[in-house]
Amino acid sequence: MTRLAKHISRIVAGVALGGASLAVFAFEPLPEKAPEPADNPGTEAKIELGKQLYFDPRLSLDGTVSCNSCHNVMASGTDNKATSAGVAGKHGGRSAPTVWNAAFLSVQFWDGRAASLEDQAKGPILAGVEMAMPNEEAVIERLQKIPGYVSQFQAVFGKDGMTYDNLAKAIAAFERTLITPNSPVDRYLKGDKKALSAQAERGMRTFAEVGCTACHSGANFSGPALPVGQGFYQRFPTFGSKYDSQYQLKADEGRYEVTGDESDKHMWRVPTLRNVALTAPYFHNGAVKTLDEAVRVMAKAQLGKDLSERQVADIVAFLEGLTGEFPRIDMPVLPETPGYSVVD
Amino acid sequence: MTRLAKHISRIVAGVALGGASLAVFAFEPLPEKAPEPADNPGTEAKIELGKQLYFDPRLSLDGTVSCNSCHNVMASGTDNKATSAGVAGKHGGRSAPTVWNAAFLSVQFWDGRAASLEDQAKGPILAGVEMAMPNEEAVIERLQKIPGYVSQFQAVFGKDGMTYDNLAKAIAAFERTLITPNSPVDRYLKGDKKALSAQAERGMRTFAEVGCTACHSGANFSGPALPVGQGFYQRFPTFGSKYDSQYQLKADEGRYEVTGDESDKHMWRVPTLRNVALTAPYFHNGAVKTLDEAVRVMAKAQLGKDLSERQVADIVAFLEGLTGEFPRIDMPVLPETPGYSVVD
Repeated sequence: MTRLAKHISRIVAGVALGGASLAVFAFEPLPEKAPEPADNPGTEAKIELGKQLYFDPRLSLDGTVSCNSCHNVMASGTDNKATSAGVAGKHGGRSAPTVWNAAFLSVQFWDGRAASLEDQAKGPILAGVEMAMPNEEAVIERLQKIPGYVSQFQAVFGKDGMTYDNLAKAIAAFERTLITPNSPVDRYLKGDKKALSAQAERGMRTFAEVGCTACHSGANFSGPALPVGQGFYQRFPTFGSKYDSQYQLKADEGRYEVTGDESDKHMWRVPTLRNVALTAPYFHNGAVKTLDEAVRVMAKAQLGKDLSERQVADIVAFLEGLTGEFPRIDMPVLPETPGYSVVD
Repeated sequence: MTRLAKHISRIVAGVALGGASLAVFAFEPLPEKAPEPADNPGTEAKIELGKQLYFDPRLSLDGTVSCNSCHNVMASGTDNKATSAGVAGKHGGRSAPTVWNAAFLSVQFWDGRAASLEDQAKGPILAGVEMAMPNEEAVIERLQKIPGYVSQFQAVFGKDGMTYDNLAKAIAAFERTLITPNSPVDRYLKGDKKALSAQAERGMRTFAEVGCTACHSGANFSGPALPVGQGFYQRFPTFGSKYDSQYQLKADEGRYEVTGDESDKHMWRVPTLRNVALTAPYFHNGAVKTLDEAVRVMAKAQLGKDLSERQVADIVAFLEGLTGEFPRIDMPVLPETPGYSVVD
């Protein structure tokens, strides 16, 4: 018996014990607070600063792209595009993952190349096809021309506190507040058995029975809780199918492109399924347009199974039950540059 | 004596009478509520719908540009760019005017080609270099795929209420809430003589004495209150100067490009000066990068005057006093498309 098969059989055993055991074996409600690193506690002033930075397009070369452009927290935490548009309409090769609940992931990016939200935040600002700033110094030089940032960095991080590392810390502190608790599935797991429809409940059982929980377990439906920096990866696709060419599933070599290690070819961080009904199109390349098709592809490519249309519809109903409650956010007021612009 | 000279002399006479008369002759505090058309009262549900639409990038062809992209209400109501970036990084020829207090203007756009906020809202969505939707039908067809919009349009505008006209009405209703009252100048005009520094107060008198108030009068510092659809236009530049070539002030023929009428060549709607310290770069083409230089150019090109550096600094201090209080806005939650995307 392979390790994967053992894991599945353990979950199926759990399922056989009934709903309560589902929680024990695979699913957990989402905590209302995310873990934070010891060296970056989220104070009110830091979170406010981070929120301003998150929404500020002046962090991009031409002042048109903010973190929120591709990770839109007024919606799904994505841009609902296959690949995102950066400055001057450039596109990268991978689909923007949702920022909601990213604080519960132990590594960031599709390939897990950033250990933490802090590390992640530093990437897109300097990526040529995203925000395209030439280097860290140029970012700080620009922020130094915005008096309201100078004073806030000083208040939050102390004298000489305006650094690229601290910018990332502030953004990460804001992102740790982006949590969507109390989805129907969470309410169900906490004991409200009416929170899910009969179809969604059936879908939850099917989800476990066919083996999806081998990867999509835990509070974030992205695998077991691991220490920060240690990723939970899986090969995708595991089983060859017609979908490989239909959706070009193997064009991108995944984590191999970071490590150069043969064993990392087509390895990907297991993504969260929370709010997955809102984050179409699907997969690392955004090639699959609908959630029902994404379920079909996953069953075939990862478990070697052809689901019935009823199974697909049931699982979709369950996944729709993973849409959480979105906190109301006060819009930030971005600090001004009196009488001049830094992005003209 | 020309009509303009008469107008100026009347204002200068007002100035001679002291601060109180300034208010009578030229400036007025900003009202806290904007006038609204009889056929588009701003109800709570309509304003909420309009807010969602205003922030929704799905109103653009590729889902990357919203009204807020160029008229950013987290900041100055502009993008602080000479010309804005539309879909695929395309640029138009004119600088985005601020949306703050636009409700007090009697015509919209730099050339006054829209009579109302409702008319204005319909333009950029279909403009190729802005949001680039092919036509009104395509916009409505897309919105119909977003269940939360279908229900809201129905609730606000009734059955069959999802039309392009009603979309514009909702956006306009939201925009009428975008008012920045209680600037230092407003507080000064209402009697708080300590609201302005000595320099700003001196700048206010200089502003009137040199003749700026010939155009920048009224509650919005954009000319007299006129009926909706009737614009207050001025020729810019009126006097030839080195600035014509330095800043290409005559490359764009202004209102003439709409009417084809010779007398409209280089005629422009007088823009508001409220929050002008936040809206760099300046003028219809965004060619002038700083507020002090904009003051120099205006004095020379419109009044034929060379200001002293002290006069410029004083007027800038006064204009900085036109930065109002920005209302806190609750971020909208954009309606979802469960299991699919309309902009993939």
